[in-house]
Amino acid sequence: MSGSTGSISRIPYDDLVALLTGIFRRAGASPAVAGILAANCAGCERDGAKSHGVFRIPGYLSSIVSGWVDPAAEPALEVAGGAFLRVDAMNGFAQPALELAKPALMERAREQGVALLAIRNSHHFSALWPDVEPFADEGLLALSMVNSFACTVPFDGHAAVLGTNPIAFAAPRGEGAPLVADMATSAMANGDVQIALREGRQLPPDHGVDAHGRPTRDPAAVLDGGALLPFGGYKGSTISMMIELFGAALTGGKFSFEVDWSAYPGAQTPHTGQMLIVISPDFGRLNGSFGRRVDDFVEQLRLSGVSRLPGDRRLVTRRRTMIEGIPLPEAQLENLRRLANGG
Amino acid sequence: MSGSTGSISRIPYDDLVALLTGIFRRAGASPAVAGILAANCAGCERDGAKSHGVFRIPGYLSSIVSGWVDPAAEPALEVAGGAFLRVDAMNGFAQPALELAKPALMERAREQGVALLAIRNSHHFSALWPDVEPFADEGLLALSMVNSFACTVPFDGHAAVLGTNPIAFAAPRGEGAPLVADMATSAMANGDVQIALREGRQLPPDHGVDAHGRPTRDPAAVLDGGALLPFGGYKGSTISMMIELFGAALTGGKFSFEVDWSAYPGAQTPHTGQMLIVISPDFGRLNGSFGRRVDDFVEQLRLSGVSRLPGDRRLVTRRRTMIEGIPLPEAQLENLRRLANGG
Repeated sequence: MSGSTGSISRIPYDDLVALLTGIFRRAGASPAVAGILAANCAGCERDGAKSHGVFRIPGYLSSIVSGWVDPAAEPALEVAGGAFLRVDAMNGFAQPALELAKPALMERAREQGVALLAIRNSHHFSALWPDVEPFADEGLLALSMVNSFACTVPFDGHAAVLGTNPIAFAAPRGEGAPLVADMATSAMANGDVQIALREGRQLPPDHGVDAHGRPTRDPAAVLDGGALLPFGGYKGSTISMMIELFGAALTGGKFSFEVDWSAYPGAQTPHTGQMLIVISPDFGRLNGSFGRRVDDFVEQLRLSGVSRLPGDRRLVTRRRTMIEGIPLPEAQLENLRRLANGG
Repeated sequence: MSGSTGSISRIPYDDLVALLTGIFRRAGASPAVAGILAANCAGCERDGAKSHGVFRIPGYLSSIVSGWVDPAAEPALEVAGGAFLRVDAMNGFAQPALELAKPALMERAREQGVALLAIRNSHHFSALWPDVEPFADEGLLALSMVNSFACTVPFDGHAAVLGTNPIAFAAPRGEGAPLVADMATSAMANGDVQIALREGRQLPPDHGVDAHGRPTRDPAAVLDGGALLPFGGYKGSTISMMIELFGAALTGGKFSFEVDWSAYPGAQTPHTGQMLIVISPDFGRLNGSFGRRVDDFVEQLRLSGVSRLPGDRRLVTRRRTMIEGIPLPEAQLENLRRLANGG
């Protein structure tokens, strides 16, 4: 965080992917895994999702160095019968496991109408929308849930059992980019707590508790033995419970409360499971109408005064950064270059 | 609402089902449909879910009398290929459409690992947990979403576009009754607003707006041209949007904002669509562990101090009422008997 923070460089997306690929390669990732993680992380930065952008690189690296996650893991597709696929990520990252299963998952969704992917033994350390958006780009409806690590107190409880537990969905539209939503079911995302801490900002009220379970607006108190609260009281807590069941119990991954990295100092990546459901939305219909119907719905939301739909801000940022380059402090870019070159 | 409200009778569940079956038969439902609706409604009353219990009978009847919903509709299973089933409810109630598809849905879920049911052209006027619980009783994991009618203002909007849009899931356990959750994604359910009105109670803050979009705690103002708010701000609003996409766009049903019963005075049942996903949770695993894993999770929630899990209160009430009978004011019972006998 040292150096001139005033000097901002703009780096083309492809160059950032190449730079991050170099970093992941040097950290021990295979070429395929390095490319997948780099594109994912650069894509978050490109879309302005900074809490999952290059900000996360130190967390990736310390998790790898600690021995907690295997950057060279080769995921294994275990079941390919019916409409239900299982992947053992082999203690690697979730995204390469998803990439491995993606062709079969899409094929099954088109053949059977719906297909489910259960990834276990995986680490998910990024946003969830990059996992679902590509399916919508191919005309499929996708839903994903992933649990994380115990950092959220269930409604009516006094100890952190739940993770930030995001849920994401992506729906193709008749015209324009898919409708893509991604939300943590904690009142805020862990990455945003970390950013608030770095930037010296207070949290909004009713977002976190300290180590004694008392409400706090101090991000350090939340991160240091405290916990987040679920969004929306008992209803948000119920949605978060659902995500534990689908992300962990169904996949064979760990529940958030079972993630124990105490023997791996520096570890930050939640070692749990992830579920995706992919649907062929016009299956069994002669005239495809799903995309047009999503358009109808979006139009009505706009008419009602909704100025920003889920994903709107990401798309606007993406269009700009793909032309102008992705803005990053020069000091941060220098640091990334040093990491890529082993400096 | 007249008569002695102090006199409470206890009616056995089976007797209440028979009584309600008579009412639905007299209203024009086929024997099968009448039995399904009666068991559903009596089941809600049995479990203490009074906002979907016999309180709803006048709404059922006025909807039928208005010609808005066809109580004699014969649902048609349209697609039975792959893992994706579609049912046209033929402008009838959703529950008979689900019953028609249930055997195939369960068979496909067991064969393929996952199966999806899309019901369209259907009216859902009850709680959602009765739709998912039976699957968990059979060892399956079930998820359902149903949209309703425009009564909820999306976050950042100023007109009602969304319905109360409940989501429900049911997970089998290793020991004990399944974990079953059912929640409206509006800040409260419409039925509870109606009950608050009848009982002369104010609504909690931040639950509704009046016809001018101003916050109100008056249930009459919410019901008379006003609207509900989603639970949990923009995140709850996003979940509600997802339910519109799955409940309407995917199924071929109407969006909540498209429900137009203005030509059917007395109509109260939302004419939309419903989606169910049913999963064989141990598919592809040699040793079934899902139920035990749900037990692990529930145990941890209890240890964290959560005193009431989703569905707990219903189960407690059910156990009591199945022994003691279902308590109903004698005047209300008399009224039901009169309706059943055509008085």
